[in-house]
Amino acid sequence: MNLDNTFSALSDPTRRAIISKLAEGDMPIMELASPFDMSLPAVSKHIRVLEKAGLLTRRKQGRVQYCRLNVKPLRDAAKWLAFYQQFWDAKLDSLANFLEENSE
Amino acid sequence: MNLDNTFSALSDPTRRAIISKLAEGDMPIMELASPFDMSLPAVSKHIRVLEKAGLLTRRKQGRVQYCRLNVKPLRDAAKWLAFYQQFWDAKLDSLANFLEENSE
Repeated sequence: MNLDNTFSALSDPTRRAIISKLAEGDMPIMELASPFDMSLPAVSKHIRVLEKAGLLTRRKQGRVQYCRLNVKPLRDAAKWLAFYQQFWDAKLDSLANFLEENSE
Repeated sequence: MNLDNTFSALSDPTRRAIISKLAEGDMPIMELASPFDMSLPAVSKHIRVLEKAGLLTRRKQGRVQYCRLNVKPLRDAAKWLAFYQQFWDAKLDSLANFLEENSE
């Protein structure tokens, strides 16, 4: 199931940081890898996990490999979580009611 | 980091199904385990993963162990994903603009 791969890909801080960096725009792999204190093969491994989860696509332009963020799986994950929003909203509603009732 | 455990816990369909069942209300472990086509120890293992991620708490009432959903980690995960909403909203905005411009 796709959500399995998405949530699994998101469970690593380096992969979340890569996603966050790609949100600024398409980026060559070398530039994407540079801020991370790890080898290029180690970053490439994370990139492959993101690619397998459909969160990232690569394209070659001349000799440079560019990475692009694909937000569709993030939207699906957000949709799954959105159902549970009613529970934290309910708690906030109770708090708002309490504050209102006790503010006079 | 907490998001690591949360996203990792959510990467399994049985664990997502347990969360979805607990959204109906607190439930004894036996009742929670019954719809799954797996042994009680196998379900218990998933429950421990959810517990470690802070998504589930247990309490004993007499001889029965009840499980309760804790939505706080789900809210944190949803917050992380919310940043990326601008990207799919932007696409929908473009579509809305296109339809508006071409509807006359």
